[in-house]
Amino acid sequence: MTPTITAFATSPDRGKGLARDMRVRWALEEVGQPYDVRLVSFEEMKQPAHLALHPFGQIPTYEEDDLVLFESGAIVLHLAERHAGLLPDDANARARAISWMFAALNTVEPPIVERSMIGLLERDETWYAQRLPAVEGRLRKRLGELSRRLGDADWLDGAFSAGDLMMVSVLLRSKSSGILDEYPNLSAYVARGEARPAYQRAFAAQLAVFETQGRA
Amino acid sequence: MTPTITAFATSPDRGKGLARDMRVRWALEEVGQPYDVRLVSFEEMKQPAHLALHPFGQIPTYEEDDLVLFESGAIVLHLAERHAGLLPDDANARARAISWMFAALNTVEPPIVERSMIGLLERDETWYAQRLPAVEGRLRKRLGELSRRLGDADWLDGAFSAGDLMMVSVLLRSKSSGILDEYPNLSAYVARGEARPAYQRAFAAQLAVFETQGRA
Repeated sequence: MTPTITAFATSPDRGKGLARDMRVRWALEEVGQPYDVRLVSFEEMKQPAHLALHPFGQIPTYEEDDLVLFESGAIVLHLAERHAGLLPDDANARARAISWMFAALNTVEPPIVERSMIGLLERDETWYAQRLPAVEGRLRKRLGELSRRLGDADWLDGAFSAGDLMMVSVLLRSKSSGILDEYPNLSAYVARGEARPAYQRAFAAQLAVFETQGRA
Repeated sequence: MTPTITAFATSPDRGKGLARDMRVRWALEEVGQPYDVRLVSFEEMKQPAHLALHPFGQIPTYEEDDLVLFESGAIVLHLAERHAGLLPDDANARARAISWMFAALNTVEPPIVERSMIGLLERDETWYAQRLPAVEGRLRKRLGELSRRLGDADWLDGAFSAGDLMMVSVLLRSKSSGILDEYPNLSAYVARGEARPAYQRAFAAQLAVFETQGRA
């Protein structure tokens, strides 16, 4: 059965590929798995039918026969475990690629989200200018550590994996702050991810949703 | 070979079980895998030898033969996949348990850490009292959603799993804010986790480190 994912009917990022369905679309494209998309409005996301699929009322969800999953990390890992192309065959290399997935989501994404949130929620507050340097400092610390580890390698640990897919997806959310540009090897790493045909197909698919549905 | 994990020589939480080695110790105890611990100072964590194991200079790390892992989520998942006791046998239930691990780390932990951080870093700032309600509001939103999903069940999805281990570990970090007490079913859920013999052995082990090493 073709799996179905959910995505924003009207994505707040206006089709820039930053919503979390993009990670799942990219993984589906990498492994060559066709999928259906069910668009949900912000109103529908708070209704019992959607909350039964996703306890936190977010997107994406993933439905395949009688399996329902939520959390982009879990869905990408599920796809990576069941299809070739996103995890190495060697057991140790596989475990390390999964480490990078968790690092992307639990260590690198939080300071990126913190930087986004101060811009969205606190820009007009009296403390914005005073608090911003600390927030950006925490982001630079993490990106500096990641940049040092990546060095001049193409990907984080050998061939492209689900760990890179998740890390590139997370780093893309720091682009608008301008801070990613301070780390040329990370910018190039993100560009390598964006250049992958599977990324481009996934990006085009989510942009098409915005162009047809999102012009509200 | 007995695996080796790293932990703080002097844990900032003074042995209260909130450092991330606790999650790995708990998982090791649940599956009955003996382990060694190498204590590292804050100074050592920034040195090349430790950064080779953990690119972000944190604890825990996990070494087993020639495998090196970092990120508590990845280590717990590695243990859960290789030993019985932390993931159900049914493939769908297994994928759902892994969803809860990611939910704990990527959806529930960030607002808990944000609440901790405002207390640690911004308590003396002029904006503390004004910003705190928004931070606590974000935490209450997530805990409310989790509380509704848990309902009166013992665990998040059937039997105790690595998803519960991670969720309880994350929720424990919100205890000191007092906000966890507003959700009696979540408090009881955390207490059920703490009551497990494996949790208690892990807790005692990390407390013993503080009592012998940490009284600096």
